[in-house]
Amino acid sequence: MGWIDEVFDGVRYGLAGSVIAEAESPFQRVTIIDSERYGKGLLLDGCWMTAERQERHYHEALVHPALCGAASIERVLVIGGGDGGTARECLRHPGVQQLDMVEIDGLVVELSQKHLPSLGAGAWSDPRLQLTIGDGIAWAANAADASYDVVIVDGSDPAGPAEGLFNRAFFDHCRRILKPGGVFATQSESPEAFRQVHLDMVLLLREVFGQADPMYGWVPMYPSGWWSWTFAARDGRPYLQPQADRAASVAAGCEIWSPRWQRGAFEAVPAAIERALNA
Amino acid sequence: MGWIDEVFDGVRYGLAGSVIAEAESPFQRVTIIDSERYGKGLLLDGCWMTAERQERHYHEALVHPALCGAASIERVLVIGGGDGGTARECLRHPGVQQLDMVEIDGLVVELSQKHLPSLGAGAWSDPRLQLTIGDGIAWAANAADASYDVVIVDGSDPAGPAEGLFNRAFFDHCRRILKPGGVFATQSESPEAFRQVHLDMVLLLREVFGQADPMYGWVPMYPSGWWSWTFAARDGRPYLQPQADRAASVAAGCEIWSPRWQRGAFEAVPAAIERALNA
Repeated sequence: MGWIDEVFDGVRYGLAGSVIAEAESPFQRVTIIDSERYGKGLLLDGCWMTAERQERHYHEALVHPALCGAASIERVLVIGGGDGGTARECLRHPGVQQLDMVEIDGLVVELSQKHLPSLGAGAWSDPRLQLTIGDGIAWAANAADASYDVVIVDGSDPAGPAEGLFNRAFFDHCRRILKPGGVFATQSESPEAFRQVHLDMVLLLREVFGQADPMYGWVPMYPSGWWSWTFAARDGRPYLQPQADRAASVAAGCEIWSPRWQRGAFEAVPAAIERALNA
Repeated sequence: MGWIDEVFDGVRYGLAGSVIAEAESPFQRVTIIDSERYGKGLLLDGCWMTAERQERHYHEALVHPALCGAASIERVLVIGGGDGGTARECLRHPGVQQLDMVEIDGLVVELSQKHLPSLGAGAWSDPRLQLTIGDGIAWAANAADASYDVVIVDGSDPAGPAEGLFNRAFFDHCRRILKPGGVFATQSESPEAFRQVHLDMVLLLREVFGQADPMYGWVPMYPSGWWSWTFAARDGRPYLQPQADRAASVAAGCEIWSPRWQRGAFEAVPAAIERALNA
């Protein structure tokens, strides 16, 4: 036992535990730990990604505003998300008929399936899941116009393999491949620890989609603990209003998300961030 | 330079920096540090309390829902708050005529005035501030019925000198000394790191006041980074609706708080907490 820390900008967040697996993929260093407080967890290049007992804050927030808001949810694309948590939350919606998941790093999937089976849970064997190990940016570029109801980007920070998930060319394709009434969702970093990256993402998404709304919540293991997800749509802002039947089908199984929580999280824009976004 | 950490329940949060002053009071160990990321900071018995560039998340959230919601704000009582940040935010409201602040530990005030002058700022020399070094619990017990418009509890965790700030006898007095239309505010711990303490506080305040509402936000340096403040009133829930003139007088100077942010923070009740509060 010892401390496993992520150090960022003069701050460290550490969990007491031990490393149980570590390997280098062509893309990054993948580490699996076993912690006292949150069970087994995953780091990529030394940055906290997820842990068994601290993953729902992130996955519920990313998935349900999009899946409860889109006009239809038959075809869903998830880019990234190799730990399986995003796929699991998507597949809790019975209306999803096909979920294409494109993860660049097969080692993340392999080690998550082995050590963090509760993250993906039944998703890995769900016949609706089509898992591709490959480049999600190329996938989006090659997908047909108006071919997805929901596009979800579940990537890591804008450095290393996830860097291309934060630019206009990629977001243009995400919009292009959405069906009418479709919704786009992405994690959008911390308004505190990555303030400028967060602002740039929201403003760029507003340019590409016409409008985009950040939503604020918590992931204790991420830098500052304060996190955001940003949503945009082909038409209007349908992600702001969960459809009652879809919300009812998932709400009882959620730890964090509820229609009320979501309403609050979209409103809880910190004053200085709101001023910067409107400047 | 090195790391100064708070360790809690298998998790550590550390800032790179150095200790610049440390002393034992009759109540606790008081430590002042200088950090790279957030400037100078304060710990009590090894627990993070505040820092120059990370204090507004906490102080704005504690103060403005109460000061913008109460029927009148002429007489305000602050129990604890020895770093001065709560007094500073209160005194930004021109309607406050007298602010009684009762802090048990004179060493906290002394070291905060010396090392963290931006926390209290002009409050320390404001003629409206009546500072008493003494027992806030006894102060509340001895105060006359209906003598304060607002009562704010800015204490540390329920162990050591702050333990008596979390029980029914104390809350009964806080209610008794409020004027009609008056508002009570307290920090109410993390719904994640101190889940049961948080739930117990909200439920007890609902018993004492008839109703009480938790509000959720962020203090990155506190355990889990996810924090709450709970508000209650003599009559109704006036803290939910900021009065426009008072809000306008402070909003431009706020980093986090705004009427919109507050509306969201009261709604962003995590699903599992809402279920537990309604069980």
